Amino acid sequence: MTTHFRFTIEKSDTTCKARAGVLHTPHGDIPTPLFAPVGTQATVKTLTPDELVDIGAKLILANTYHLYLRPGAEVIARFGGLHRFMGWSGPILTDSGGFQVFSLESLRKVSDEGVVFRSHIDGSEHFFSPEKALEIQEKLGADIIMALDECPDPMDYEYNKSALERTHRWAERCLRAHTRADQALFGILQGGIFPDLRRESARFLTSLDFAGYAIGGLSVGEPKEKMWEMLDITVPLLPMDKPRYLMGVGSPEDLFEGVERGIDIFDCALPTRLARNGAVFTSRGRINLRKAQFAEDPAPIEESCGCYTCRHFSRAYLRHLYKAGEILGLRLNTIHNLYFLLELMRRIRAASLEGNFAALKESYLSEYAPIMDAEGQRAKELARRRGKSVHNIS
Amino acid sequence: MTTHFRFTIEKSDTTCKARAGVLHTPHGDIPTPLFAPVGTQATVKTLTPDELVDIGAKLILANTYHLYLRPGAEVIARFGGLHRFMGWSGPILTDSGGFQVFSLESLRKVSDEGVVFRSHIDGSEHFFSPEKALEIQEKLGADIIMALDECPDPMDYEYNKSALERTHRWAERCLRAHTRADQALFGILQGGIFPDLRRESARFLTSLDFAGYAIGGLSVGEPKEKMWEMLDITVPLLPMDKPRYLMGVGSPEDLFEGVERGIDIFDCALPTRLARNGAVFTSRGRINLRKAQFAEDPAPIEESCGCYTCRHFSRAYLRHLYKAGEILGLRLNTIHNLYFLLELMRRIRAASLEGNFAALKESYLSEYAPIMDAEGQRAKELARRRGKSVHNIS
Repeated sequence: MTTHFRFTIEKSDTTCKARAGVLHTPHGDIPTPLFAPVGTQATVKTLTPDELVDIGAKLILANTYHLYLRPGAEVIARFGGLHRFMGWSGPILTDSGGFQVFSLESLRKVSDEGVVFRSHIDGSEHFFSPEKALEIQEKLGADIIMALDECPDPMDYEYNKSALERTHRWAERCLRAHTRADQALFGILQGGIFPDLRRESARFLTSLDFAGYAIGGLSVGEPKEKMWEMLDITVPLLPMDKPRYLMGVGSPEDLFEGVERGIDIFDCALPTRLARNGAVFTSRGRINLRKAQFAEDPAPIEESCGCYTCRHFSRAYLRHLYKAGEILGLRLNTIHNLYFLLELMRRIRAASLEGNFAALKESYLSEYAPIMDAEGQRAKELARRRGKSVHNIS
Repeated sequence: MTTHFRFTIEKSDTTCKARAGVLHTPHGDIPTPLFAPVGTQATVKTLTPDELVDIGAKLILANTYHLYLRPGAEVIARFGGLHRFMGWSGPILTDSGGFQVFSLESLRKVSDEGVVFRSHIDGSEHFFSPEKALEIQEKLGADIIMALDECPDPMDYEYNKSALERTHRWAERCLRAHTRADQALFGILQGGIFPDLRRESARFLTSLDFAGYAIGGLSVGEPKEKMWEMLDITVPLLPMDKPRYLMGVGSPEDLFEGVERGIDIFDCALPTRLARNGAVFTSRGRINLRKAQFAEDPAPIEESCGCYTCRHFSRAYLRHLYKAGEILGLRLNTIHNLYFLLELMRRIRAASLEGNFAALKESYLSEYAPIMDAEGQRAKELARRRGKSVHNIS
């Protein structure tokens, strides 16, 4: 890691791999473990930078693919980079664009050289190489940038094997292309759900000098147990002194599972997307404000929640806004869901510092059902009667 | 006016009818002249109550028709009224629902008794009478409530004549049905663009004891000069000591014209609707952020503007948000347009207090073109060369 970055571990749990640390960056310190809200198009959907500060966000994501296409990396560079363009002075992470490009229906051609794809906006043809992905990310100017990787279907062994070799060659090229000392370059481990490929990826990439390691290619449709199995295999092969980032994971129950396995950073678009669909987190599980049962409910989403939404508005008002198609509802739900996750992470971090992670996990998940509907309730009660932990139900 | 309300005039201009006053209400003082943002469905679109406070809103509107249908007046009453339901502790004005109902394609039947209409949401049939309109507004609990009026096409003399008689009978019934001393009931003058009907409406309604008078049925498609002519005829017939409210007017140039003619309160959905279409006010005229010319413009919408948007964001970023379909753009544009109008009104009020209204009007409008495009610019230059005032061009 360059002198602009420093990762310090304040406390490691003795009973599991959970750890509390701080990643120092040119735009501020990131306490870990941490959940990073997603700001795909240089805005965390519906929120201002001030609101992100209010809910305690310490790192946000932006997407290289989207910003390269619109408004263009040069435009952002001319504004002095993403921080100034979007008015967010805290740390930013940009992905490499790999995940988006490989998700496109209009993906054209992948070769060792790079990947040709068509824009989802206007169909125009574009080319990303490892060098190009770095060049764009240097223009965007995020604090943490990612190597370009090939993202295959996690269940296809042969594809994962060949994609992994290419991802590794690209990782070396990204490191060579990396020039800005004020940007930390992370490598991305791939390998699908295959232990041998995951091990190979961890061994190869840790032989290179990345500032941190992301675990990619998970949470994309494979069974959850497979994801946790891959972490169990991978994390022990990663260096202790570098941050570990699990891409695309961000539900309350999954944050506990990830932290327990040694993950430091998470991101996920789900909490903000759920919010825009009326689905909000509570400590007893997720509820959907569209439901008629909330039409006259005077309670906030969560009594004990300190977010702006819960301090000012009832479920009945939030439901009214949703039913009336009012944008304010999308905002208020988004504020709550992000605050909820960030507050949960603050509690997880505090518990880790006190050596109480396992106790917090058990007590928290005994109250929590991932989906809080009649069915979830019944399952929870059944589980309780059987004396089982509730988080096995999901 | 009941003891809960008091209207004090601090200063009347000597050269025109402009005046500066304060309307005292149970939820706070309203300095006049004033522009009131529209919060149709118990939310000023895209904004929180805190943001309304920040931009200096002193009165907001809500729509009886919309709230009666969804979530229902009873629901809001059970929450202690609109103020508590929507988290806005300042003064609120509700219209009577007349304007919305008479704008509906599915209007069914009007009789002296009332009006039968179908909901735009689910087609269900409903009935508003003067008494029903008051009953609903008492449940909603706004500080200022409006009598039910019939709203005809402003150009149709016969329709206006018969509608006016009904509106007057309904006005008497509304006064009789009015019970809450903490709500000020305003009458609404009608009469289209017809001087004799406008005079008749003013004479009749001022013979009744309303707390204030609204001028309705204007700014609905008639030529602008007709609107100003109707004000010139009507306002002198209104009592000096009661507030005057011009419904549905809210462009910078029109606010000057209205204040000059003695109007105290304005409302209009246009500034917020324009904002959501990317059109924003500047002191030199309206611009549309969609335009390519702003793609790399580092300036705020207006250099001298003190709103959150102008203090933090460039036109280029706002254009990016608009093009990317991001909700934050709608919010930031809305904040600017409302702040711009409210700030203009604060300047107009201050000038009125100092006896400088005419000077402010002249200097402001000499810089201002209602639509700031190439054509508007040319017309402005021409007008300047001819030594004419710019606001005659629109």
